[in-house]
Amino acid sequence: MSEGQRLERPDMLATEEPLEIRVGGPGQKGASVAVTMRTPGADMELAAGFLFTEGLIQPGDIKRVAYCEDLDGQEQLYNVVTVTLSKAFDSEVLHRNFFATSSCGICGKAALEDVQVRCPAVAPGPQVSAGLMASLPDRLREGQNLFERTGGLHAAGLFTPSGELVSLREDVGRHNAVDKVIGERVLGGGLPLSDRILQVSGRSSFEIVQKAAVAGIPIVAAVGAPSSLAVEAGERLNVTVLGFVRDGRLNIYSHPERIV
Amino acid sequence: MSEGQRLERPDMLATEEPLEIRVGGPGQKGASVAVTMRTPGADMELAAGFLFTEGLIQPGDIKRVAYCEDLDGQEQLYNVVTVTLSKAFDSEVLHRNFFATSSCGICGKAALEDVQVRCPAVAPGPQVSAGLMASLPDRLREGQNLFERTGGLHAAGLFTPSGELVSLREDVGRHNAVDKVIGERVLGGGLPLSDRILQVSGRSSFEIVQKAAVAGIPIVAAVGAPSSLAVEAGERLNVTVLGFVRDGRLNIYSHPERIV
Repeated sequence: MSEGQRLERPDMLATEEPLEIRVGGPGQKGASVAVTMRTPGADMELAAGFLFTEGLIQPGDIKRVAYCEDLDGQEQLYNVVTVTLSKAFDSEVLHRNFFATSSCGICGKAALEDVQVRCPAVAPGPQVSAGLMASLPDRLREGQNLFERTGGLHAAGLFTPSGELVSLREDVGRHNAVDKVIGERVLGGGLPLSDRILQVSGRSSFEIVQKAAVAGIPIVAAVGAPSSLAVEAGERLNVTVLGFVRDGRLNIYSHPERIV
Repeated sequence: MSEGQRLERPDMLATEEPLEIRVGGPGQKGASVAVTMRTPGADMELAAGFLFTEGLIQPGDIKRVAYCEDLDGQEQLYNVVTVTLSKAFDSEVLHRNFFATSSCGICGKAALEDVQVRCPAVAPGPQVSAGLMASLPDRLREGQNLFERTGGLHAAGLFTPSGELVSLREDVGRHNAVDKVIGERVLGGGLPLSDRILQVSGRSSFEIVQKAAVAGIPIVAAVGAPSSLAVEAGERLNVTVLGFVRDGRLNIYSHPERIV
């Protein structure tokens, strides 16, 4: 509808389908650990990245990642990924990580401490100019081939300190886009990502900073605002958190020493 | 940074803290069913709305909603909500609803069918003019007191067919904002919401349309794009899905008969 006009035309939408992620060791039946709504594509990376950034596995644990084979229909075939480990999967880790404290109660502080325990401190890494950082959203957008068509996709990109886009993934969920770019390196090697910048198209949440920290990424920049806990996570985990990176401006919320 | 200037000033951020939701019947220990990252506030509504829109309870089942009492510290006190039911809670329902099929596999179609089984068809409800629909995002924004300050909050508003804003909730998570406005009615009565319009500040996902359908809301409008599965859910569940409602325009993706 525009000034009273009514127009019918086809529209391209971001695809959303559930993905079930299963994990098992040798001889173990795969345990279902998560169902996430995601845009199909890079599903192996998503599964590997999710399991790694949530602290459920170490990158070296993975032996094989595949779509589930004992399925009824074609439609479901591509919505279940099983990650087979080289050692037994301890499903106790699920409860430990998803519920930060074993007693009654959970809070941002406990969640932060939990991440700190299981991820090494992020290294100082590179220093980057504010001008280069301000250019990353445009570079990310240039790299997106779906963005203009759907208007509804989140993107996550990994950049070198000189501003080269080395990896880009899109998804209806912004956490999934981050898991996909990190998962690519979980499967392909190259962790920790101490010399990389993560630029996301939307806002920064606690989970995004957490995932970056687990992967060793020193700088996380977002086009939108970070949450308060995302900033606190940046401070505690030694990650530089930038927000409102757009129109040649940016805000620095934690560890400004990396931005010159 | 603006044209090379560096400025230091305080910034107001959207608060994000984990909330653990527990459910139990008379004499049962509360079972932990979810941990969600949310903006504190309207936590009782969030817990009630989440449990209802995810099909875990019926509105009439709730006897009491309270922060957990047996806690160590003040900080955790407000991050655990226990919903006490008037009858025993069947934790089997958790597995049934979060994993749409019991055999190997899950897909959007199965998730849709699952929602159809447990929610009655959404009633035809009101007809609304496109002009009124196009005005809702501005009315929603006027109603938001935090929006201008944080730039990072999602909002969900319930409107009457004449465009009156009757309920507004904000959250770092857009699903949580929807659960909060619906949860208010779960606790206060007035379901199904057959005569209400749901306007959200961001995009529409499958979950948002699902939650609206469970609550009987006939029209769901978003400032951003819907996902493909959100549109499919709208078609199947008899919900009118609108997207890109901004700048005096809007797109209709399903059941256009309600928009005149």
